[in-house]
Amino acid sequence: MLMRLLNRKLLQDVIDNHLHHDIFGGNFGLEKENNRVDLNGKLALTPHPKAFGSKMENPYIKTDFSESQVELITPVFETIEEAYHFMEALHDIVSLELNDEYLWPSSNPPVLPDEDEIPIASIEDSSENQYRRKLAEKYGRKRQLISGIHYNFSFNEDFLHKLYNKLRVDKNYREFKDGVYLKVARNVMKYRWLLIYLTGASPVFDKSYIESCVRLSVHFDEDEESHFFPNMISLRNSVCGYRNEKLLHVSLKSVEDYIRDLQKLVSSNELLSVREYYSPVRIKPASGNNLVEELLHRGIAYLELRMIDLNPLYKIGISKETLHFVHLFLIFMLLIEDQPFGEEEHKIAALNHDSLIMNGIGGRLYGEYSHSESLQKRALDFIDEMKVMLNFLMPNEDSFILLLEKKRNVVQNAQLNYAAIVKSEVQQSTYLSYHLEKARQYREESKANGYQFKGYEDLELSTQLLLKAAVKRGVTFEILDRQDNFILLQKGEHKEYVKQATKTSLDSYSTVLIMENKIVTKKVLHQNGIRTPAGRVYHDVKIALADYPIHRGKPIVIKPKSTNFGLGITIFAGDFSLEDYQKAFEMAFEHDQSVLLEEFVTGKEYRFLVMGDEVVGILHRVPANVVGDGNRTIEQLVFDKNKDPLRRKGYKTPLERIELGDVERMFLKNQSKTIHDVPKAGEIVYLRENSNISTGGDSIDFTDEISESYKQIAIQSAKAAGATFCGVDMMIDHISEEASAKNYCIIEINFNPAIHIHCYPYRGINRKADEKILDLLFHEK
Amino acid sequence: MLMRLLNRKLLQDVIDNHLHHDIFGGNFGLEKENNRVDLNGKLALTPHPKAFGSKMENPYIKTDFSESQVELITPVFETIEEAYHFMEALHDIVSLELNDEYLWPSSNPPVLPDEDEIPIASIEDSSENQYRRKLAEKYGRKRQLISGIHYNFSFNEDFLHKLYNKLRVDKNYREFKDGVYLKVARNVMKYRWLLIYLTGASPVFDKSYIESCVRLSVHFDEDEESHFFPNMISLRNSVCGYRNEKLLHVSLKSVEDYIRDLQKLVSSNELLSVREYYSPVRIKPASGNNLVEELLHRGIAYLELRMIDLNPLYKIGISKETLHFVHLFLIFMLLIEDQPFGEEEHKIAALNHDSLIMNGIGGRLYGEYSHSESLQKRALDFIDEMKVMLNFLMPNEDSFILLLEKKRNVVQNAQLNYAAIVKSEVQQSTYLSYHLEKARQYREESKANGYQFKGYEDLELSTQLLLKAAVKRGVTFEILDRQDNFILLQKGEHKEYVKQATKTSLDSYSTVLIMENKIVTKKVLHQNGIRTPAGRVYHDVKIALADYPIHRGKPIVIKPKSTNFGLGITIFAGDFSLEDYQKAFEMAFEHDQSVLLEEFVTGKEYRFLVMGDEVVGILHRVPANVVGDGNRTIEQLVFDKNKDPLRRKGYKTPLERIELGDVERMFLKNQSKTIHDVPKAGEIVYLRENSNISTGGDSIDFTDEISESYKQIAIQSAKAAGATFCGVDMMIDHISEEASAKNYCIIEINFNPAIHIHCYPYRGINRKADEKILDLLFHEK
Repeated sequence: MLMRLLNRKLLQDVIDNHLHHDIFGGNFGLEKENNRVDLNGKLALTPHPKAFGSKMENPYIKTDFSESQVELITPVFETIEEAYHFMEALHDIVSLELNDEYLWPSSNPPVLPDEDEIPIASIEDSSENQYRRKLAEKYGRKRQLISGIHYNFSFNEDFLHKLYNKLRVDKNYREFKDGVYLKVARNVMKYRWLLIYLTGASPVFDKSYIESCVRLSVHFDEDEESHFFPNMISLRNSVCGYRNEKLLHVSLKSVEDYIRDLQKLVSSNELLSVREYYSPVRIKPASGNNLVEELLHRGIAYLELRMIDLNPLYKIGISKETLHFVHLFLIFMLLIEDQPFGEEEHKIAALNHDSLIMNGIGGRLYGEYSHSESLQKRALDFIDEMKVMLNFLMPNEDSFILLLEKKRNVVQNAQLNYAAIVKSEVQQSTYLSYHLEKARQYREESKANGYQFKGYEDLELSTQLLLKAAVKRGVTFEILDRQDNFILLQKGEHKEYVKQATKTSLDSYSTVLIMENKIVTKKVLHQNGIRTPAGRVYHDVKIALADYPIHRGKPIVIKPKSTNFGLGITIFAGDFSLEDYQKAFEMAFEHDQSVLLEEFVTGKEYRFLVMGDEVVGILHRVPANVVGDGNRTIEQLVFDKNKDPLRRKGYKTPLERIELGDVERMFLKNQSKTIHDVPKAGEIVYLRENSNISTGGDSIDFTDEISESYKQIAIQSAKAAGATFCGVDMMIDHISEEASAKNYCIIEINFNPAIHIHCYPYRGINRKADEKILDLLFHEK
Repeated sequence: MLMRLLNRKLLQDVIDNHLHHDIFGGNFGLEKENNRVDLNGKLALTPHPKAFGSKMENPYIKTDFSESQVELITPVFETIEEAYHFMEALHDIVSLELNDEYLWPSSNPPVLPDEDEIPIASIEDSSENQYRRKLAEKYGRKRQLISGIHYNFSFNEDFLHKLYNKLRVDKNYREFKDGVYLKVARNVMKYRWLLIYLTGASPVFDKSYIESCVRLSVHFDEDEESHFFPNMISLRNSVCGYRNEKLLHVSLKSVEDYIRDLQKLVSSNELLSVREYYSPVRIKPASGNNLVEELLHRGIAYLELRMIDLNPLYKIGISKETLHFVHLFLIFMLLIEDQPFGEEEHKIAALNHDSLIMNGIGGRLYGEYSHSESLQKRALDFIDEMKVMLNFLMPNEDSFILLLEKKRNVVQNAQLNYAAIVKSEVQQSTYLSYHLEKARQYREESKANGYQFKGYEDLELSTQLLLKAAVKRGVTFEILDRQDNFILLQKGEHKEYVKQATKTSLDSYSTVLIMENKIVTKKVLHQNGIRTPAGRVYHDVKIALADYPIHRGKPIVIKPKSTNFGLGITIFAGDFSLEDYQKAFEMAFEHDQSVLLEEFVTGKEYRFLVMGDEVVGILHRVPANVVGDGNRTIEQLVFDKNKDPLRRKGYKTPLERIELGDVERMFLKNQSKTIHDVPKAGEIVYLRENSNISTGGDSIDFTDEISESYKQIAIQSAKAAGATFCGVDMMIDHISEEASAKNYCIIEINFNPAIHIHCYPYRGINRKADEKILDLLFHEK
């Protein structure tokens, strides 16, 4: 018999009042724990990395119970995608900061040392330390290392407002809203067994886990390393997992009842603190400073779902699919009938939870209508009712229907369950080696993401890097204008507005204006004894033409006063006609009223990235090229060089692909080559004259190769303009010589230097320019 | 007999070596003293105005002997025009700063009190004070008030170098250069009588001057107020003027001889200091810190001509014509024969000087060839030789020839001499009333120049005002890029780079970027609790079109995210069609990728100029209009309103002329009016819808009319963006009400506010925004 779960009247109200879109709105936040492990899968005994700043103040990256247990927390987002991407970014950031360590991808702990060797997180707050010590005594440290994902959800406030106004209930809004979340929380408690079935992914555990659990379990490998309980999909949600020792009844009838029951448990010493109530779902206030106070005075702001395992099949421990399913599940929990849920119902829900844990989806369903019904049958009905709901709310949208079909299939076929998949894969090797391999693989994936911030790929690379560096150390951010790459960074009360990563409050407006104006730049540098190309300024083509006899035959550059990506610049390296000279001026005058004619300076050009009193990186750019191996053709060499994940098209990677277009073919032709030629081993074949990264050029880090004397000149140049952040373009005759009065020349100072090229060069190491910006902005280090 | 003065060989060398252009190059500086007088022409006994800063440190405006004697000093310029304009600007600056005082336009003192009532300049340096007291005792304070002009000149260094290289003399360059200036100095000493004749302009003096001089002189008025000596054109250059008591011989043979003789005079107590040697021409080193040391070690850098009177016929005391003549005279002094000039020649030169003073141009010529020759005959020959020189050097340029013709005429006709003109004009009234009237007239001329900096009229008005304010307080400046209005201000070691007056180091780059981006500005203001127009951002026309039903019928503004002089903005005050709505978006998207749709805010718009913690000025703009008088037609009213010197065409004045073009005529037609209508007395007729100053609008100062509550909001807005200098555009419903949460709205914050509109409004007082910028940049007040 198909049970009617849905509250059809409520559903109809939602639809009649045009709230069927709004009900899908919501706010999403994720938290997850991962144990840090060494390269052998043993719990890392190293301290929480300093790069993450203060554990108490970094809102994104903390420690949980153990010093080895990293906790990652996303901000609240309006879409699942954003929360998902942010969690991925956090995962990447933490992974890349760990030296010779991995994030352990299972809810079940890695290879553990003895209880007393497991380090409890060291926190500045002593009462916090004491609490963790007491928990360690009560639950054992090994158990405390069980990790998971918390899914925080609230409905769109606007939706709740509208619903409240439409339903005309006899309550104030606060009471109505609390009622909504309490109803959902009760239903989640009741049907949590289904969520555990569909998200459970911790079937196997290591022999180093709690002895009693290991003793009761079976093992499938010869060395008795990998243990499991038959049918158990989530050790974490079992008695061997991390839950309160007894079944504790805390009413979800009202906020007041909830608080009253919690406080009773604390005063009877059943719980050390209200925080020790490890319910599968928690009702939460907006601010976490004082749970009881906040809940009583401001009501429920969101729900925290706590029964979701880390899923080793996915890098971040959860799939987008699961996130969406949980969301649908929660909407469903709102739209189904609201039945009494007292202590008895509470016990039945716990029975069903344990029935699922011990017997899987084939387990018996307790309570409700039929005592002979199985969890599986109930689950199928449940999902079918969800489909009914969806057909009402979103008749034309089938992606969610397909998702439900998939989950229905998983209910019908227990071997399709995440836990079953994990278990069968683990059986190929061992618990340890399987998860270690996953950890290794995910770390590689994180590495490939190094240069980007997942979810923010539309921003410039420099801004993505800066944001990641901010998150790493717990500096919060707000994106004020995505298109402009305009962000607000904040640490405590300290706010910093930043555009395009290096346009900050640390440079004054006049400094930027000095750099923007080539004439002024040259005057300022010259007044400070720094060498710049000799030359003069023209405001009139006629006067420039009259000077042709003076300049002819000399190597010169003609360029507009203000640069725009090199537009309007002409270089005459050898002799040139009056006609060409005139054309060059006319072109330059199209870009500015003032045009500079300068000596063409010899040497190689190096970009010095100056930040504060330091040269953070030095880069030299080389035109697109391939190096022969005596086997592959130029075409093949280009194809292979383009495989580098840092090299893509469209300026969203630190390097651009080498094209084999007309320009490159012509350039080869001038060298009497074609793309089908096979260069000798070690032979460098250039494909372009210009060295721009945008046309496939290589960026080569020279930071350690160039002597301090040149670095000092770059720093002095920045200081002359008063710049904190700038890119100094210097021509150097021979980097093997020390700088002298004559063997260098400053071409330009740029006020918005790209930082990604110094972090992800073609050859060289990450110069961490992103970190340096934050050090300077927030006076750190 | 025509004496051949010119050294034909030297002249030919100059021409043969193509130096005939270079010889006209040079460096020019002017110094002049003016006594300050009260409105009755009595010497002002007030202290040197504080606005001019420290007398010792302000390089442009100092005091001379007396506290009442202002000394104005130009920088060194490469053209006479620049030096002239700068002196005019200095004169304007000082005149405008004086309250109820004038600058006395004669070399001869104004109405003087008793000797001991004349205030000696009070200087921080006590040895300096002591020196002035000793001079007062020696010469008398009245004599010390005699004022004049010093003309500083050096040849173009490049010219001297080239000449040195071509002439292949048997000296080093330093010796050669000293030789050039010594030769010119000797010749100036010899022929100075002619310069005095052509520049003397102090024939009459007041009865309050030194008693002995008054007693010896004659008077031409009944009240015996105005005194003179017959034929005397320059009291200043006479024994009654300011010169050494005895004829002192100081050799001009070599620098060493010059120093030796000077030091002898000091050690014999003939002179208090080498500075007391009041020679008509001085040889000067580059730096004035220690004359003797510098001259001996670095040689002569320039010549100082000291015999030129203040000419009351010209506002700045000297005409451009005279400046050019003196220049030609100095070139001539270089190119004539070099004859021995020992003690005897020195005496003869002094005799000729006094001959000219006592007998005018008809006086006897001493020394040289003919004892019977007159100064006049000699002067005519001299000028003819100058013409010969000019014909060689500049055969095709006749403006200088015309100048020489004019001076020849003055030599021939003594009544055309400046002194004769002054004397004849003075005779119409009295010495006092004539010069007082001139002073009054020049002050009016300075007032009309208030908004501009003479010689820098190509710069923006805001920059001109800032530069003048800088000069006034002795902050030096360098123009780094004229077209960009980019300047360097410097006081001691403190440098400030400023572009367009308000783009300075006091605003950070991020502050400017916040203001530049309307979306970010609104977020930042909103986060700080400041009211901005409600609205939203569109990145896509389609999405904007979909929202048409939401917006239709409401008063809205559609504008690109970044403003460029109001381009791409559409206002819909009433209802609007989908088509117009679409067009407005398409137009806005042409200017930016992001377009804002905002509520159209009611009230009147006011520009708050915020500087630091202060609202410096508040301006409201009114569309072009005239106020009727019941007599004149609209056309006549416009014509008369346009007479205001502040109202010109071409954005070089604080206000623009009202046009009577198609737009204005159409606007009148819509009011059923024509330009020939006669508005009633007091009737305001508007000629335009828009209130831009550029189309003849009026700027009305409201700084004192608007309550502190609005000023605080403007200051908070600036602070929210972190701005030091900005223009806050605020809509205010009723300025009679105090600001509340709802009755104002911030439209924009501008990072480069014009300051001239607050200094020279159509109605209101000068809010001295220029001064405020300097106060903040240099931490003053």
